[in-house]
Amino acid sequence: VIVLLAGGVGAARFARGLVTVVPPEEITIISNTGDDFHVYGVHVSPDLDIVTYTLAGIVDDERGWGIAGDTFTVLDGLRALGVEAWFSLGDRDFATCAAREETIAAGGTPSSFAARLAARHGVRARVLPMTDDPVETRIGVVDSEGEEADLHFQEYWVRRGAQDRVLGVRLAGAEAARPAPGVLEAIAGAEAVLLAPSNPVVSIGTILSVPGLREALAATPAPVAGISPIIGGAPVRGMADKLMAGLNTEVSCVGVAAGYRDFLDAFVIDLADAARAPEIEAMGVAVAVEQSLMHTDDDAAALAKAALGAAAGTRR
Amino acid sequence: VIVLLAGGVGAARFARGLVTVVPPEEITIISNTGDDFHVYGVHVSPDLDIVTYTLAGIVDDERGWGIAGDTFTVLDGLRALGVEAWFSLGDRDFATCAAREETIAAGGTPSSFAARLAARHGVRARVLPMTDDPVETRIGVVDSEGEEADLHFQEYWVRRGAQDRVLGVRLAGAEAARPAPGVLEAIAGAEAVLLAPSNPVVSIGTILSVPGLREALAATPAPVAGISPIIGGAPVRGMADKLMAGLNTEVSCVGVAAGYRDFLDAFVIDLADAARAPEIEAMGVAVAVEQSLMHTDDDAAALAKAALGAAAGTRR
Repeated sequence: VIVLLAGGVGAARFARGLVTVVPPEEITIISNTGDDFHVYGVHVSPDLDIVTYTLAGIVDDERGWGIAGDTFTVLDGLRALGVEAWFSLGDRDFATCAAREETIAAGGTPSSFAARLAARHGVRARVLPMTDDPVETRIGVVDSEGEEADLHFQEYWVRRGAQDRVLGVRLAGAEAARPAPGVLEAIAGAEAVLLAPSNPVVSIGTILSVPGLREALAATPAPVAGISPIIGGAPVRGMADKLMAGLNTEVSCVGVAAGYRDFLDAFVIDLADAARAPEIEAMGVAVAVEQSLMHTDDDAAALAKAALGAAAGTRR
Repeated sequence: VIVLLAGGVGAARFARGLVTVVPPEEITIISNTGDDFHVYGVHVSPDLDIVTYTLAGIVDDERGWGIAGDTFTVLDGLRALGVEAWFSLGDRDFATCAAREETIAAGGTPSSFAARLAARHGVRARVLPMTDDPVETRIGVVDSEGEEADLHFQEYWVRRGAQDRVLGVRLAGAEAARPAPGVLEAIAGAEAVLLAPSNPVVSIGTILSVPGLREALAATPAPVAGISPIIGGAPVRGMADKLMAGLNTEVSCVGVAAGYRDFLDAFVIDLADAARAPEIEAMGVAVAVEQSLMHTDDDAAALAKAALGAAAGTRR
């Protein structure tokens, strides 16, 4: 089994490449759930749904999230009734989140619902939330008027457009979270573990915050290979630069690798960052230099192959 | 102001007649909220929404509830994801209930949301929930296998089709509920108070269970007139007969009137029940005998006129 630690859009694109080079039945995706939140009464799990919809071939490719061709009757109705509906959710997507809410309220778990969602959409890869317990990514910020605030990640990112200066990131609930059923087993029994080119703070970092995850990556006999989400000094998408800077981490492939050095065997960096390879190698991490932008599914497949190759070239 | 105590479909039909004989701005409707419940994460308030949608002219007339021409994307999605979605809710209706959930979660009240919903749909009558506090109509039943259960009214009525023998009705939370803002004032200052032809147990009875309501009806200088929802030995719609029988109340206009005798001044009964008039008059209640089936809006208007006339004919 190939295990993939995954955030949202970037990870989903990568996964779409990965399933073309490895049979999907042999892939287990461990999804970040720190972005989960409750809105309009329902349980949104953005990263997990993005990955599932993408692998199902129904994602809205333009936006990278949501369902292509979805209608917005509920959202329009909410707005007409005065709700400041800053989190967009199509009707079919609403159904997913309402079903998750209802399933969990009835005693089901996020992971059992994730399996049901994947099955319903014909996704053959296994998609696991990192945990069935609530973990909430909170961003400590100071706004343009010097006011400090503690925001849910979605408020920071979607509602306020990452405009606030970051003071810190807190993963509320992480200390008490347990890995979801199958997570540790998948890592321990993997052929290789890949870290998708996702945000190292609020995607991969959140997954690593679940007690036991980091240790499992260090202990597995499988090689662990990552792909840098940072090219040059900037993330391909998202706000990793602002978060890393806020945490006094160098915004570069080196800064990302350094955060993983206790378990990382190989790291794929972009051609543009070739000169930084020696710094990463000095951490005892093998480096593969590749074209890492995923404009097409073929790019994603090539990147997946490169990551698998980099992993296979190392030995624990 | 004319005050109308109202349940669901029957009350809504009556209200549609009432607004044609009294300017809607001069009508305050006090709606039963004991049927409210949370499903799919959202806050459904069936009776209040039925009344609002009906007065807005958007109700699905065939069913008597929901919005005409609504789509069912969310409900279909819920079912596809394995949720036993026994409570039907169209997408526009879902938006209402999600907006209610979100508004209340953000610190708003059911009554402020009810006003917003009415305004959004151009309803000029004032629609008030009986209370902003949670009251839940629970039905104690024994099923066909002798198993006892305590069901939410919606489970008893919608999910199980009122098939269970009724042992009792409990209005959970009623003791602690306070009338919603404006309710007592409307009753005290009314020209007349009407009781819609609604279920005397789980519609009007629930409203009367809010502490202070019954006393306000007894104390108001306004005449109080009711319309019997029972014709012969059966309700025009719904399951009032089963509930009344379960509570050892006679299933008849006389049984209904007896439950209101402490504050009732006049009662409108159907032509079919003319022979029962003396029994109600013996309670000190004036009786008007009318054709009380509302097949058309004209029927409803005529019935509203009759009820207003019966009220005006009494003096406190």
